[in-house]
Amino acid sequence: MTTQATAALQAEVNRLRLEVQRLQTEQGSQKITIGNYLLTRLTQLGVTSMFGVPGDFNLGFLDLVEDHPTINWVGNCNELNAAYAADGYARVKEHSIGVVLTTFGVGELSATNGIAGGKPFSEMVPVLHLVGVPSTAQQKTKPMLHHTLGDGRYDAYVKAAEQFTFSQAFLTDKKNAASEIDRVLVDCMTVARPVYLSLPTDLVHEEISAQGLKISLSRHPSPNDVEVESFVLDLISKQFKEAAGDAVVLVDACTIRHDVRQELNDFLRNTGFPVYATPMGKTAVDENYERYGGIYLGSISRPEIKDKVESAKLLLSIGSLRSDFNTGNFSYNISTARTIELHSNYTQVQYAAFPAIGMKQLLPKLTERLACYCDRASKIHIPQYTSPIPKEDNDLISHTWLWPRVGAFFKPKDVIITETGTSNFGISDVPLPEKSILVSQVLWGSIGWSIGSTLGAALAARDRGLGRTILFVGDGSIQLTVQELSVMMRQDVKPIIFLINNSGYTIERYIHGKQRKYNDISNWNWTGLFNTLGDSDGKLSRTYTVRDKTNLSELLDDVTFASGDKIQLVEIIMDKLDAPRALQVQAQLSGKTNAYDSKVIRGPEGEMDDIRNTVESNVD
Amino acid sequence: MTTQATAALQAEVNRLRLEVQRLQTEQGSQKITIGNYLLTRLTQLGVTSMFGVPGDFNLGFLDLVEDHPTINWVGNCNELNAAYAADGYARVKEHSIGVVLTTFGVGELSATNGIAGGKPFSEMVPVLHLVGVPSTAQQKTKPMLHHTLGDGRYDAYVKAAEQFTFSQAFLTDKKNAASEIDRVLVDCMTVARPVYLSLPTDLVHEEISAQGLKISLSRHPSPNDVEVESFVLDLISKQFKEAAGDAVVLVDACTIRHDVRQELNDFLRNTGFPVYATPMGKTAVDENYERYGGIYLGSISRPEIKDKVESAKLLLSIGSLRSDFNTGNFSYNISTARTIELHSNYTQVQYAAFPAIGMKQLLPKLTERLACYCDRASKIHIPQYTSPIPKEDNDLISHTWLWPRVGAFFKPKDVIITETGTSNFGISDVPLPEKSILVSQVLWGSIGWSIGSTLGAALAARDRGLGRTILFVGDGSIQLTVQELSVMMRQDVKPIIFLINNSGYTIERYIHGKQRKYNDISNWNWTGLFNTLGDSDGKLSRTYTVRDKTNLSELLDDVTFASGDKIQLVEIIMDKLDAPRALQVQAQLSGKTNAYDSKVIRGPEGEMDDIRNTVESNVD
Repeated sequence: MTTQATAALQAEVNRLRLEVQRLQTEQGSQKITIGNYLLTRLTQLGVTSMFGVPGDFNLGFLDLVEDHPTINWVGNCNELNAAYAADGYARVKEHSIGVVLTTFGVGELSATNGIAGGKPFSEMVPVLHLVGVPSTAQQKTKPMLHHTLGDGRYDAYVKAAEQFTFSQAFLTDKKNAASEIDRVLVDCMTVARPVYLSLPTDLVHEEISAQGLKISLSRHPSPNDVEVESFVLDLISKQFKEAAGDAVVLVDACTIRHDVRQELNDFLRNTGFPVYATPMGKTAVDENYERYGGIYLGSISRPEIKDKVESAKLLLSIGSLRSDFNTGNFSYNISTARTIELHSNYTQVQYAAFPAIGMKQLLPKLTERLACYCDRASKIHIPQYTSPIPKEDNDLISHTWLWPRVGAFFKPKDVIITETGTSNFGISDVPLPEKSILVSQVLWGSIGWSIGSTLGAALAARDRGLGRTILFVGDGSIQLTVQELSVMMRQDVKPIIFLINNSGYTIERYIHGKQRKYNDISNWNWTGLFNTLGDSDGKLSRTYTVRDKTNLSELLDDVTFASGDKIQLVEIIMDKLDAPRALQVQAQLSGKTNAYDSKVIRGPEGEMDDIRNTVESNVD
Repeated sequence: MTTQATAALQAEVNRLRLEVQRLQTEQGSQKITIGNYLLTRLTQLGVTSMFGVPGDFNLGFLDLVEDHPTINWVGNCNELNAAYAADGYARVKEHSIGVVLTTFGVGELSATNGIAGGKPFSEMVPVLHLVGVPSTAQQKTKPMLHHTLGDGRYDAYVKAAEQFTFSQAFLTDKKNAASEIDRVLVDCMTVARPVYLSLPTDLVHEEISAQGLKISLSRHPSPNDVEVESFVLDLISKQFKEAAGDAVVLVDACTIRHDVRQELNDFLRNTGFPVYATPMGKTAVDENYERYGGIYLGSISRPEIKDKVESAKLLLSIGSLRSDFNTGNFSYNISTARTIELHSNYTQVQYAAFPAIGMKQLLPKLTERLACYCDRASKIHIPQYTSPIPKEDNDLISHTWLWPRVGAFFKPKDVIITETGTSNFGISDVPLPEKSILVSQVLWGSIGWSIGSTLGAALAARDRGLGRTILFVGDGSIQLTVQELSVMMRQDVKPIIFLINNSGYTIERYIHGKQRKYNDISNWNWTGLFNTLGDSDGKLSRTYTVRDKTNLSELLDDVTFASGDKIQLVEIIMDKLDAPRALQVQAQLSGKTNAYDSKVIRGPEGEMDDIRNTVESNVD
């Protein structure tokens, strides 16, 4: 029996033990408050920071958090930022979850975008949304409290939460509080999605048995059915045989989210197959691994990568998440007949789907079956994945130059965060060092996310002993969530923030409205931000403005700067109509799909032509 | 027939004409795009500014907005702030609506707190939430686009919107686009609640008949049934007779929201009854009106007001909204047997409810019936509603001193905005000048709301030729939404912002956790904000820090400052544990209801006593 199957069984055993114990020890002597039961569970899961905003239905619980010996309360400036921070924390912490605490109604709704779609759900990030709600007595009588809708519908928020979280627990009684808490926590870990838990003010201090805490929670992935799994393995083996081992592996987001990185790496090293990644799967496999070929993005891929991936006889896809921006607008040119997909909870071979055959247990067995192809597979040519710094005939900072240049600045174990927009696309062609982590939000794509996420990511990186936290964000995006810089300083994290000042929403300009005023923003005094947001004597931070390649290169080579000993912000002045190659193509495809161009647009004359010519004139 | 009943009938006639015309002119020759049909409707409703953030499913529509001759596109820093701004605009503009435009998924969820609960719904503010969504073709095939949840559930946002908006229209076809647009707009005006309208990218430029636009939209309040109304009038008359005219009027929020201010004032002047207001009804009646007695807040009221209101034989309540913070935590000491309530869509006399008898048409008839009590009613004593500036023995700025002092600074037609927290409570005891407007969010109470709302309010005030826009906000609250100061400067509005720097969330400290760290925030360099957020050469703005009464008084007396010729921010340094009287009592009551004190709290020793002693030691 494999380690993975054993772990699945062990998880089931633990779950049953817990249930048995709970039934046996209803009257157990050791007591704990519900609030502290929850905090103990979170500690067991490795949670060391909790994000959120105090509000008058969560203050009692916050007493417990503040007094907790190992959980750090990170008071955020607002709830959306807090949700983004919990998301960033969960992405970098790994094998743990992010937690955001808000108050009833106002607070929880402000967090919705961060939680629900935010990315946890769509992007599969395990985040617990804790909501302090009115007491159980008030939930019954439903008075017109502040933060309510004034119509007695106390359940309206819950109905909204149901849309955006995988599971919900609304505590109403101390009797089932422990099992409800455990249920949503296990869901959160197992499916890697956000969950919702409401804490009525009065229940926080109610006492329950502490016995259950002796058994740790563990993921409960469904064990694969032995017979079906064996059938699937035979089928996949047959495919590889027919392809004579001419296969490539494509790694995507769920490899990271569903914790199969180790199994995948064992597979790759034992079989020798070439491996590529999608934008969302970037850094799931070390980008300096000798059999790694770079980023595949459908028709937007570098030509040599596109050719290698699409000409293989077989594609083994691991944990795919096929969104528009993750696939070059759905432009994979690989037939399903040549594709095998492994997912967390099903497997697909050509056109046949096998529910409940998950990759965590399947991969090690596949490694055994396919190791025999190692000699053959190791000889399949892969393009060299490098990104040389181009020589350009002027000193202005271009995207073509910027990304390879910062690529040379990265170090192993760096945590690199890219905002939706030019940065998400710019980073894709740059190989990142070993053990570095790329954090980005390709599917949900909520602008402003990266600022909050950087706070959470930096705290998790500190916990894990990782390297620097480095953020790339545009001037439009940072305006949404800028206040969180203040919390970074209070929490003493020291990210390096590269702020691309390109005078507005450049990604939108590429999709539509290149010269439109609605894509403009106010230009801020970016280098004044830290001072205004709390570093009044200038001891905590440093800021820079760079306008040309020479200046930026000098800064990147500066040892003190590179050490990341303080929080730093580098304003990079760039042209408002410059963008990475991949973005230009993607945006044009999105704009077309939106049918902005299919009708006469009553805009300034010539705009239509501008848009049509975008790609032709800008792609190099 | 009264003017109000005629108006109701006329509205119905218009509605029917529109329907007839639409049926007749399906093939009408004059065409207009759906996007411009909507913009024309908004213009007819008096909309001159539209708030929001561009996103890749609303860019096509934004072309039309930017090219529109009379609608000003206010690009906000983020969607929540935009929703707050639309709310502030709607509150001050009157007889119009606020409009916020976001993109699908990410953008709309970020706005949810501003829209849904934000206050429109609970506080009855007419706001249209416009959402640019994927094309009708994509809505059918449901690809995994960015900003989607990745599971094909394109309707998840809609389900959330249903919780928080009064009505929704999801355009899917050009055939019924005009009638769907009209339906939600009429709902928005009629019920004074938020509504939701989705605009698929492709439909924006589809052409439809423009005929319908010749007939303006109007509110469609249900006409009162003549027989029931007459019965109700008799019943109310009987009550007044039995009370021998010993009655007081209590004015609340819905008087403003449901547009009965004129009818109410006619009633008051013709009958002479004493009138009081709730916090949410403040400024519905001019506070210098000679028969006005001040603010009634249940047990938190000034004793002489409490006595006068509660000892009257009859209470005529107009447009009430009985939330906790609007009623002194539900502490009205007036029996239902002595109460008559007029609402927008029903009337309640003692224990009897009369559905569909609305106050807009009832009030003028009641004026006729009750004018006979004028001599008697005019003699009922009312306490003098003044707020003299107290002499205190030190120069520190206290809440007891601050509010009467700024009361002397206000001028007629000022628009005064108070944030949830100390400001909302501080303003309640200060009489405001005639024609001034108080804007506050007592029920929903979402901190940070006032910054966005001030932007919208200032734009509406400029439209209406009102006076200065003056905001009171705390240092904790402004951190949530601070970036909108940048948009104020770009839009050239010039509010005076009084920023109460009291080192954190003072309202929360009073509810619970007086000395807790979770109620602390980072102290910012407040006077650096304008410079950092766009006023790099300092020409647009002025900032001040005042630490004592002398300084603040001098500033308030300064003619240039008072003229409001630039945007200005005054940082007022105050003690973190000082709060207005009403807040101290209210917070204590809320804390008790939340049962924070009902169990042993494992906080720093002595905290429990601190909380219990709060009111005793702080109330003056």
